Amino acid sequence: MTDLTPTAETIKAAHERIKPFISHTPVMTSATFDRIFRTSIFFKCENFQKVGAFKARGATNAVRSLSPDTLKKGVATHSSGNHAQALSWAAALAGTEAYIVMPSNSSPVKVDAVKGYGGRITFCEPNLSSRESTLLKVIAQTGAIEIHPYDDPRIIAGQATSAFELIVEIPGLDMIIAPVGGGGLLSGTALSAFYFAPGCQVMAAEPEQADDACRSFASGCLMPSVNPQTIADGLRTSLGTYTFPIIRKHVSGIVTVSEESIVRAMKLIWERMKIIVEPSSAVPMAAIMENKIDCAGKRIGLILSGGNVDLNNLPW
Amino acid sequence: MTDLTPTAETIKAAHERIKPFISHTPVMTSATFDRIFRTSIFFKCENFQKVGAFKARGATNAVRSLSPDTLKKGVATHSSGNHAQALSWAAALAGTEAYIVMPSNSSPVKVDAVKGYGGRITFCEPNLSSRESTLLKVIAQTGAIEIHPYDDPRIIAGQATSAFELIVEIPGLDMIIAPVGGGGLLSGTALSAFYFAPGCQVMAAEPEQADDACRSFASGCLMPSVNPQTIADGLRTSLGTYTFPIIRKHVSGIVTVSEESIVRAMKLIWERMKIIVEPSSAVPMAAIMENKIDCAGKRIGLILSGGNVDLNNLPW
Repeated sequence: MTDLTPTAETIKAAHERIKPFISHTPVMTSATFDRIFRTSIFFKCENFQKVGAFKARGATNAVRSLSPDTLKKGVATHSSGNHAQALSWAAALAGTEAYIVMPSNSSPVKVDAVKGYGGRITFCEPNLSSRESTLLKVIAQTGAIEIHPYDDPRIIAGQATSAFELIVEIPGLDMIIAPVGGGGLLSGTALSAFYFAPGCQVMAAEPEQADDACRSFASGCLMPSVNPQTIADGLRTSLGTYTFPIIRKHVSGIVTVSEESIVRAMKLIWERMKIIVEPSSAVPMAAIMENKIDCAGKRIGLILSGGNVDLNNLPW
Repeated sequence: MTDLTPTAETIKAAHERIKPFISHTPVMTSATFDRIFRTSIFFKCENFQKVGAFKARGATNAVRSLSPDTLKKGVATHSSGNHAQALSWAAALAGTEAYIVMPSNSSPVKVDAVKGYGGRITFCEPNLSSRESTLLKVIAQTGAIEIHPYDDPRIIAGQATSAFELIVEIPGLDMIIAPVGGGGLLSGTALSAFYFAPGCQVMAAEPEQADDACRSFASGCLMPSVNPQTIADGLRTSLGTYTFPIIRKHVSGIVTVSEESIVRAMKLIWERMKIIVEPSSAVPMAAIMENKIDCAGKRIGLILSGGNVDLNNLPW
C-alpha cells in the first residue's frame, strides 16, 4: 500500500490551496495564564476560523482537491458536528452540493447551522449503522463522493495548516498541545511540527470519558470508544486507520482530563481571554491546569480548535 | 480659563506614555456582519485590553502623568465599574496605591476584581452624596489625588489612543461609532478622528434608558440622567464639563437604542465573532441593527469598549 501520509510539500500545497478561502487565524497570548503557569502560551485561535472551527481547513482542502467531474456530483458525509457545517460551507463556496446525513436526534441548533450553510440533510436513526447505511444510500442516489471527517489524508493535510501557520508565526516553540478526537487535527499538527519545527514536541489531551486515543497510544492497537459521554462533543470520535499511525509515530504523549476540569478551563478562557471556545477547545488548557503537562519555562503552542457553543445552554 | 482640550500632540504623547503598559488591541472583522449590513466594519477590540476595557488607557495616562511626589501619595476615585479596576491596576503597576470608594451594594465580582488588582476599598452608602463625601474623607486622610473616571483631560487623551491606533491601522474610515456614558471614550475618539482622520465622522450610541448624552447634545445644555436603569452598566454615567463641549464640537450625532436591541446585539457578537463583549460594547452594533445609523457602503470603525461580564448571570 502506498504511504498516503501528507508530506511537507503536501501540507504547504494544502495551505496554498485553501488560503484564499479560510481565515488566517490570529495567535493570542494571556499575561494571566503565563503568570499562573510560569510559561509562554501562544493560543492559535481556530474559534475565529470560518464556520467557527478548524474543520473549515480540512473540508476546504478535500473539496478543492477533487477533479471538476467529481466535484460536480457533490460531497457527502455523516456528521452532526462541525465537520457537517464545514463541508456544507466549503461545498457551497466551491459551487457544489453537500449531502449531510444527521441523526434524527441532532440538536435544532446544529441542523439549522448546516442548513444555513446550504447543506442538504438526510436524517437517519441515531446509531452508527443507520448513519453508515443511510450515507451509502445517499451516495448511491447522488453520485456524491464521501469526505470522512478525519480519516482522510486530504483532511489531515488541511488540518495541518493550522500548526503550520502557528510555527511560521511563532518561532522557537518547545511544544504544541492539541485536543484529540478522531485525530485529524492532532495528526496534522504532529506532521507540521515534525516537518517545520524539528525539536518541537507535540502533546495531546483528551477527555477521560472518551480516552480511546490514550488507550490506543499506550497499547499500540486501535481501541475505539463505545458511546463515550463527554461534554467535549467534538472529541467523542475514535482514532482512525490513517490518523493513528501518524500519531503513534509523531506524538510524544496523550493525557486525559476530567469533565470538571474541561468546564473550569473553558470558563477561565472565556473570563480571562474574552473569547468564546467550545468545550473541546478547553481540553489542552484543562491538562495544563491538572498539571498533566509540564509547561514551566517553555514556549507552548496551544490550538483552540473551535468556538461553536449553544449560548442558551452553557455548562455552568 | 485655559483650554485643556487634548491636542494632537497631547494624544500622541499619551500613546507613547502608555504604550509600554497597555495592549495594542487587535482590529477584527466579520464577513457575516459585513454581508448583512452591506458595509465594512472594523471592530477595535478593547475587550482584549488590560483589565478587560479601554479604561486601562485613560487610567494609565493619568497615573503616569503625575509628578513623582504626587504619585507617591496614591490615587483615588469612586467607582464600582471598570474605572475602579483600571485605576487599581495602573496604580499598582506604577508602584503606588489606589483608594477606591465603592457603594456597599457593589457586586462581589466587582469588589473581588478591584481587590485582585490591589485596590484599597472603602465602602460607602449606595448614593452619589455618600460616594462623594466618602471620597473626600479618603483623600483628606491619605493625601491621594482624585482621578475622575472620565471628566479629566488626561483620561480623555488616554481614551483617545484607541481610535488613534484604529485610524493608523485602518486607513480611509468613513465613520467611527463609539458608545457614550460619561463621554471619556467618545470625546477622545472624536478628537482622534478630527486630528488624524479628517473627513471621518464620529457617531455615538447610547441606551434609551440612559439618554442624557442624546438629550444634552440636542438641547445644547448638560442634562444629566438621574438613576438610569440600563443593562449597559458602563453607560449609566452622564456627560461632564470637559467631555460635553468636545462632543458638541466634534461628534456628528448621537442615537439611542432599546434594552432589547442591546442584548440581541451582544448575543449576536458573541455567536458570530466568538468574542465576549459587555452590554455597553454592544450598543453601537445595536444602533446599526436598529437602522439608526446608516452604514451601507461605508468603512466603519466600531469601538468594542470592554468585555467584563458575569458569566454566571447572562442576560438571555
